[in-house]
Amino acid sequence: MQNYKMILAYDGSRYDGWQKQGNTGNTIQGKLETLLTRLNGAKVEVNGSGRTDAGVHAKGQTASLVMDTEWDCHVLQETCNRYLPKDIVVLSLEQAPPRFHARLNAKGKIYTYRIGTSHIRNVFERNYLYDYGKPLDVAAMRQAAVLLTGTHDFQSFCSAKPGKKSTVRTLYDIAITETDREVRLRFHGNGFLYHMVRILTGTLIEVGNGSRRCEELPDILAARDRKKAGFLAPPEGLTLMEVEYDQKIQNQ
Amino acid sequence: MQNYKMILAYDGSRYDGWQKQGNTGNTIQGKLETLLTRLNGAKVEVNGSGRTDAGVHAKGQTASLVMDTEWDCHVLQETCNRYLPKDIVVLSLEQAPPRFHARLNAKGKIYTYRIGTSHIRNVFERNYLYDYGKPLDVAAMRQAAVLLTGTHDFQSFCSAKPGKKSTVRTLYDIAITETDREVRLRFHGNGFLYHMVRILTGTLIEVGNGSRRCEELPDILAARDRKKAGFLAPPEGLTLMEVEYDQKIQNQ
Repeated sequence: MQNYKMILAYDGSRYDGWQKQGNTGNTIQGKLETLLTRLNGAKVEVNGSGRTDAGVHAKGQTASLVMDTEWDCHVLQETCNRYLPKDIVVLSLEQAPPRFHARLNAKGKIYTYRIGTSHIRNVFERNYLYDYGKPLDVAAMRQAAVLLTGTHDFQSFCSAKPGKKSTVRTLYDIAITETDREVRLRFHGNGFLYHMVRILTGTLIEVGNGSRRCEELPDILAARDRKKAGFLAPPEGLTLMEVEYDQKIQNQ
Repeated sequence: MQNYKMILAYDGSRYDGWQKQGNTGNTIQGKLETLLTRLNGAKVEVNGSGRTDAGVHAKGQTASLVMDTEWDCHVLQETCNRYLPKDIVVLSLEQAPPRFHARLNAKGKIYTYRIGTSHIRNVFERNYLYDYGKPLDVAAMRQAAVLLTGTHDFQSFCSAKPGKKSTVRTLYDIAITETDREVRLRFHGNGFLYHMVRILTGTLIEVGNGSRRCEELPDILAARDRKKAGFLAPPEGLTLMEVEYDQKIQNQ
């Protein structure tokens, strides 16, 4: 038995998201488990750091998995990349301590959300950004972003119904950069609720287009009510960039 | 009657190339003619600067077309972009003198060919570069490129059988740039034969991987024989970047 840590990139456009549904479904996890189970000769479970929705991409999704026998990491990575679909790739693969678990040990995540602001669509990036098509007031969005940063109850920014689990998360930073064709949001936090990045983005877009004022944000947070926050930005603009772990856990 | 000049970008991945086949086929020209004919109320012919093959992209394909009535350029462009498929876009549209013809008046063209040299494929760029997957000797390729530049009979670099038409063309420049993941070739010439850029690229790749020597190039050119040149590089790496015209012709 050997535990492995895998870093993955994928174009989520043609998939029903990360998490397998029913038998396997057309999911990233399903594709990986089917292949690794065949290589292993017995069922392999691939644990991602978290789900990504249908149409959402990854440049640094991280997963852990246990194989019954020890594989040379390079050979296992090459074999995966030979047989995986062309829109999924294993960027790195290494042995991990037995207790390493990609979801349970994740300490932080970085997502980017790309918003196309050009009037003329970019045909080559159409699956990788939200074609908003109008300019946004980035200064106002930056002001709003500051009000969202920090440790808050993000229930208002979560599509799941309130339950027993805590909806408190810490957003370390929302960095907003701008080109003549695009506004890019980079979210760094210790964890994200279901749809949280996309609802934060939708809300920030509403600030950026003038339909919502920055001053509303503390009230939206305090309401703990999904209906108070902005629209759910579409999936294609979102990419999971990186999952952070304690070095201690990885080396123990 | 009013003549228009249109600059287009398209992702060629899902099309059978630029040129309509039979009735219209699944081609860029076919999509444009179907839409413009509907807007015009009578048959419109869209003349591209040249064909692009199936899977080849454009960031600056240029076409001319005559509408029976005068349209506001902005309105016509907007209408095209509303109804065209998401992977085709009109970047600019302007009135042109009656005699302007996108193919007959073209004075030069610029193509780029992108070669992925990284061992690990780029899932997001998979339709926009040739996933070669191994490093190339760019210094050798640059030496070879110099030998191809200039005015030559490029019959050896043309997939069409020799006929009465001249196969002499002038290649002003082949610029080769390199990143850690990619080699990019930029071809600037007064015109290109059928498959010429892709065969030049295949030949340069063979120089770059050591299977062919620079010194062979003058003999390949002199042979006027397709079999002497290198392989046909796949279409997905190729993009038509720009078509050049005399300012005089456009303003006459």
